[in-house]
Amino acid sequence: MICVLPNNVASPAIETDLTRLFAPRSAALVGATDNPTSFGGRVFRQMTGFGFPGRIYPVNPRLKEIHGLACYPSLKDLPETPDHVGIIVSTDRVFDVLDDCAALGVRFVTVFSAGFSETGTPEGLDRQARLGALARRAGIRIMGPNCNGVVNFVDGFAMTSTAAIKGQRAPAGNVGVVSHSGGLGQINVMWRAQEIGLGISYEASCGNEADLDALDFVRFMLRSDTTDIVLMAIESIKDGAKLKEIAHEAAEREKPIVVLKFGRTEAGSRAAASHTGAVAGDDDIYDAVFRQYGLIRVHECNELYETAVLLRKRRWPRGRGAAAVAPTGGNIVQVADVGASFGLSWPAYSAETQAALAQLLPGYGKVSNPTDMTSLATGRQELYRQALNAIAADPGVDVVVPIFASVAKADLQRGADFVARCEKLAAMLWVGGCTDDPSFTPKDFVKAGIPVYRDATPCMRAVRAAIDIGDHVRMHKSGRATPERPAHLDFQTALARLRACARKLTEREAKQLLAGYGFPVAREMLASTPEQAASLAREIGGEVALKIDSPDVAHKTEAGAIRLGVQGEEAVREAYAQIVEAARRYAPHAQINGVLVQEMAPAGVEMMLGVIRDPVFGPVVAAGLGGIHVEVLKDIAYRAAPVTREEADAMLNELRGAKLLDGVRGMAARDKDAVIDLIVRLSWFAHDFREEVAELDINPLIVLERGAGARVVDALIVRTGIQQ
Amino acid sequence: MICVLPNNVASPAIETDLTRLFAPRSAALVGATDNPTSFGGRVFRQMTGFGFPGRIYPVNPRLKEIHGLACYPSLKDLPETPDHVGIIVSTDRVFDVLDDCAALGVRFVTVFSAGFSETGTPEGLDRQARLGALARRAGIRIMGPNCNGVVNFVDGFAMTSTAAIKGQRAPAGNVGVVSHSGGLGQINVMWRAQEIGLGISYEASCGNEADLDALDFVRFMLRSDTTDIVLMAIESIKDGAKLKEIAHEAAEREKPIVVLKFGRTEAGSRAAASHTGAVAGDDDIYDAVFRQYGLIRVHECNELYETAVLLRKRRWPRGRGAAAVAPTGGNIVQVADVGASFGLSWPAYSAETQAALAQLLPGYGKVSNPTDMTSLATGRQELYRQALNAIAADPGVDVVVPIFASVAKADLQRGADFVARCEKLAAMLWVGGCTDDPSFTPKDFVKAGIPVYRDATPCMRAVRAAIDIGDHVRMHKSGRATPERPAHLDFQTALARLRACARKLTEREAKQLLAGYGFPVAREMLASTPEQAASLAREIGGEVALKIDSPDVAHKTEAGAIRLGVQGEEAVREAYAQIVEAARRYAPHAQINGVLVQEMAPAGVEMMLGVIRDPVFGPVVAAGLGGIHVEVLKDIAYRAAPVTREEADAMLNELRGAKLLDGVRGMAARDKDAVIDLIVRLSWFAHDFREEVAELDINPLIVLERGAGARVVDALIVRTGIQQ
Repeated sequence: MICVLPNNVASPAIETDLTRLFAPRSAALVGATDNPTSFGGRVFRQMTGFGFPGRIYPVNPRLKEIHGLACYPSLKDLPETPDHVGIIVSTDRVFDVLDDCAALGVRFVTVFSAGFSETGTPEGLDRQARLGALARRAGIRIMGPNCNGVVNFVDGFAMTSTAAIKGQRAPAGNVGVVSHSGGLGQINVMWRAQEIGLGISYEASCGNEADLDALDFVRFMLRSDTTDIVLMAIESIKDGAKLKEIAHEAAEREKPIVVLKFGRTEAGSRAAASHTGAVAGDDDIYDAVFRQYGLIRVHECNELYETAVLLRKRRWPRGRGAAAVAPTGGNIVQVADVGASFGLSWPAYSAETQAALAQLLPGYGKVSNPTDMTSLATGRQELYRQALNAIAADPGVDVVVPIFASVAKADLQRGADFVARCEKLAAMLWVGGCTDDPSFTPKDFVKAGIPVYRDATPCMRAVRAAIDIGDHVRMHKSGRATPERPAHLDFQTALARLRACARKLTEREAKQLLAGYGFPVAREMLASTPEQAASLAREIGGEVALKIDSPDVAHKTEAGAIRLGVQGEEAVREAYAQIVEAARRYAPHAQINGVLVQEMAPAGVEMMLGVIRDPVFGPVVAAGLGGIHVEVLKDIAYRAAPVTREEADAMLNELRGAKLLDGVRGMAARDKDAVIDLIVRLSWFAHDFREEVAELDINPLIVLERGAGARVVDALIVRTGIQQ
Repeated sequence: MICVLPNNVASPAIETDLTRLFAPRSAALVGATDNPTSFGGRVFRQMTGFGFPGRIYPVNPRLKEIHGLACYPSLKDLPETPDHVGIIVSTDRVFDVLDDCAALGVRFVTVFSAGFSETGTPEGLDRQARLGALARRAGIRIMGPNCNGVVNFVDGFAMTSTAAIKGQRAPAGNVGVVSHSGGLGQINVMWRAQEIGLGISYEASCGNEADLDALDFVRFMLRSDTTDIVLMAIESIKDGAKLKEIAHEAAEREKPIVVLKFGRTEAGSRAAASHTGAVAGDDDIYDAVFRQYGLIRVHECNELYETAVLLRKRRWPRGRGAAAVAPTGGNIVQVADVGASFGLSWPAYSAETQAALAQLLPGYGKVSNPTDMTSLATGRQELYRQALNAIAADPGVDVVVPIFASVAKADLQRGADFVARCEKLAAMLWVGGCTDDPSFTPKDFVKAGIPVYRDATPCMRAVRAAIDIGDHVRMHKSGRATPERPAHLDFQTALARLRACARKLTEREAKQLLAGYGFPVAREMLASTPEQAASLAREIGGEVALKIDSPDVAHKTEAGAIRLGVQGEEAVREAYAQIVEAARRYAPHAQINGVLVQEMAPAGVEMMLGVIRDPVFGPVVAAGLGGIHVEVLKDIAYRAAPVTREEADAMLNELRGAKLLDGVRGMAARDKDAVIDLIVRLSWFAHDFREEVAELDINPLIVLERGAGARVVDALIVRTGIQQ
């Protein structure tokens, strides 16, 4: 059991290079034993057996020697200060050993021992807090507690108990793995990745994260020349701001981060909560923010390493146009279906490509995409290669997937050569066997660095991920990824106004605040007598809406303190009286400021815009179509604030009901530009007021026809840090 | 390329037992050669090399002997009439050989030759039609053309060109495979299934289906004692009625059918259309009908055989309660997430189970589900087994999934023994390696009949499939699966009424027809003068709706020939005049019967009910929530007609917006029972009028509060077979 304490503060300024944690010149293990089944015995065996070229010091006062190495009674007795100390002692002794580390000036410590926040007890939580404080005070970077250490295939250092590195050391590769859980990260991800032929550079099972967290390990790997992609298997993110920084660095370096984040279902969240005790956060928000930050999200361990088979090549297609060529019609149909379900298109080949193919395959007729080459499959591999090259040269094609069933090794090798040399992103789908060497499998190709897949789904998932990363990297490098603050947002004035309000702002206060950030609000005035209301209604003209103005009546409809479409002075006066009476009945002690007289909103598409304070990512902006879309269908798009116009646009396009804004059922198209502008403004509001505003809901926002803008009809704002 | 011609007629009465096709006593191959790379050479090599114990006759006028067997110039020269003849000759010679077969009384023929409907040419289509006609006339059952034959692992007979059966014959198992495409069925499904340790009984690659279709092969396998599950990889279903029969038989025998049906995306449909030329039908309807008939649908070849690893055990849990036990917390969280995403629940253990576990694991505290047994994972396997048994005995648990990471073979074996002996459905999830025998893999367990999975997703998908099959089998055996015709549906009267109508019925005619089938329609009368309209409006009372009544104005709103909420005699008269004028302007030559005066529908939730004539499944009933739900969100449920009340209920529950009927936003719950009743009635209407009605739309149906029923406000019916 691992337990991560929530830590919503900004990352500490200390940012230590973890090189000597992963590749120490000397390492000590306090609690090393010669018992091969004890935890200390297992970790020590990995330290000595994994090919570590540095100096190893077992520390155990009860032993003189372990596996031929001199054993020391305490750290203080060592001939040098080791770069990295591992601690496997009973919980109550951990701090004594750490005091020795601090005294000696040890820089890196891994605490394997459990008994900290994962226990859920006050003592455990306190111990974990003390561990974090000690790390900061002594300037030691601590991995764990309750973790399973690191494996470094590049330099041959392992300080971990896992059985997954038994036997001969697997060759190093360019894939890094970071996991909260040791078992999952080391078996389900690292070992399984090696089983399909991927090489791992580093693996870190970071446990409770009292000091170093998962993202620190990710950053180390991103910065390492020997790592091209990082796979994360996590139950929560501790620090959303740090994730943003690291995602930024990943985009800069064009190194993909693939994330398996658990808790996408209620059962998963519950299991994760009891496993890590972490504040879960809303999974839909994780999903949206991962996308916003350019991270690839997957849902099971195998999807992590399967995606890496292609992404480790770091080739980014410029579009979604895919082409596939297969020797069997059935596989063509299958790949067409699977590719389209991942959002790929299968563009028709250009006239030039058709002409080139016609020359190669006379009498074949017009060639469709994906391409069935039944007649060519047998024995005419040179022609097949030329056809593949012609297709790869098509300007509409961004990705090429040659498909092989059961053929001879030489043919497979030619396919692999094409994939390796193709100027565009290419992945091979090999669904069958090798007819002349049954022992030859896709693993042999993956080992050689060739992206080869067994099934269309992981292949197409990886292709789609490469496209998404390409889009993100290009946007990042263009500078368009940086949100631009709209002009004339007067935070100070708005802040002063907010501070004058009670905890729950009235509708009028909320709308005034929003108006200061450029939101178009319906024309409205406050009346404090029936006569004044009648006069204001006359001034506005036509039908009006009347609503109670009270900080104590948040649910106006429920209170019966709202009237729509009121017309005529007598009717307005009557409505005024009824509304005040209803409000008094609903909340006898309510402070009543009067009645708001509002122009009726024109007809349009109803939307909801909102701000949520996420425990991980801070201010998050939300958008959805109004009414049942939000309440019944949960059709809501999220982004961490602030957002760019492009992100706001993407939010609208993500909505299942997006078409409503384009005009359906004979209705005119709506002013999407206006909504995009308001989402951007709202995101800056959310960002500016991240400390002051706990909750914000604009519902409904009426979206008018193109060019006519939108109107905020009702808004709710709740302040933070003020008692009810 | 395979081409299946649509064939919407009922299955022919001829239903031949295919035993002698799969297991002939003697077989001839016309077009056999000694060239190992030619098609005829490859097929002949499989016939002789696969261990066939019967008599084999190569037929080729140019050869005297092939592989030591006497070669005959023609079928007529054979010493006996073979049970099964394979034909690999040029297209134009196929019919000559078939004439010989007919003359000799051959019962089964496989036509490998291409050049039929898959060409898409009139000649090819004609050839295929002649082939079908010849089969029926001569009483020969023909497989193909353009197919890749059968493989029979039970009796050792193979007549196919595939390289997937090279080498030593794989042991037979209880899994049958039927595919349109040879490459896909034989490599992606059959060979890959064997690669993970599954045994295959029969494989059929049925090609163009001129006579025998995929379902004929499925039926043979279902009836075979040696087959417990059939896997289908298909691009279309030729005959929906036959599928229903076969699904019925499968439920009766409790043998699962798992279907991979391509064409779920537009790209996939297009590829399938160009591959098979088959009428695709709506994929959403396929999806719904597969569910209705108890078939399990998957989306890629590997999902077919992965699902079979569990389903071949034919154990059906009684509920969705799952329990899992793992040695690592990370795997617990992953399985919780994945299981929940497949609709499984993780019930809390009962007090009795908790007590039993407390005795086994003193000091462990309350045990949650899925269960993390970190502390037990190492070396205490007997305790682990006892804990598993206690959990399996919990009354809330229907399925047990023990999870293993990397452990010793003996421990794995104990896990497998538990899975094999567990009284409830159990599957093992083994995510890691075997520490003391790296060559030991999940394949070894699968070979031994144990359901073992590498990843949570295929495991949980299979568990969910077992639950769904269990539900279906129980419903089937209870007799509740048979739709019951409501009383007092007077088809003859309704038919006579329909026949008196034009191609497009007027709203009034359509509603009268529906009223005869028990549909509650809004009160309405036809007025032929403004005065009559005013008098009818007075009779109805309150606000009324006025609508043109004309067979030539289908889109009344578009024509401006509708007025809602009209009140007062003067207003009604005026509206009458305006409506008639608008209709005249819209369609100058329209036949105008008058104006319909209708009571205004009470407020309620809008729904749409409809009937579609599907090219495969015939009359299909559709239900959705009104407005944007159908038009923008495509949130529609389908079933082949007629349906049971339970199916109608399931349709409503499938809708994403289903909650709207339960009452949201402070609204009362709606009369779902009334809607269910109407869906059942509509499904009988669809069934009864399957030949006469091309299209039916009830939109909107207003669903009132519970107990108050529903009202048909508008309806559209279009007749078949009448020119516009």
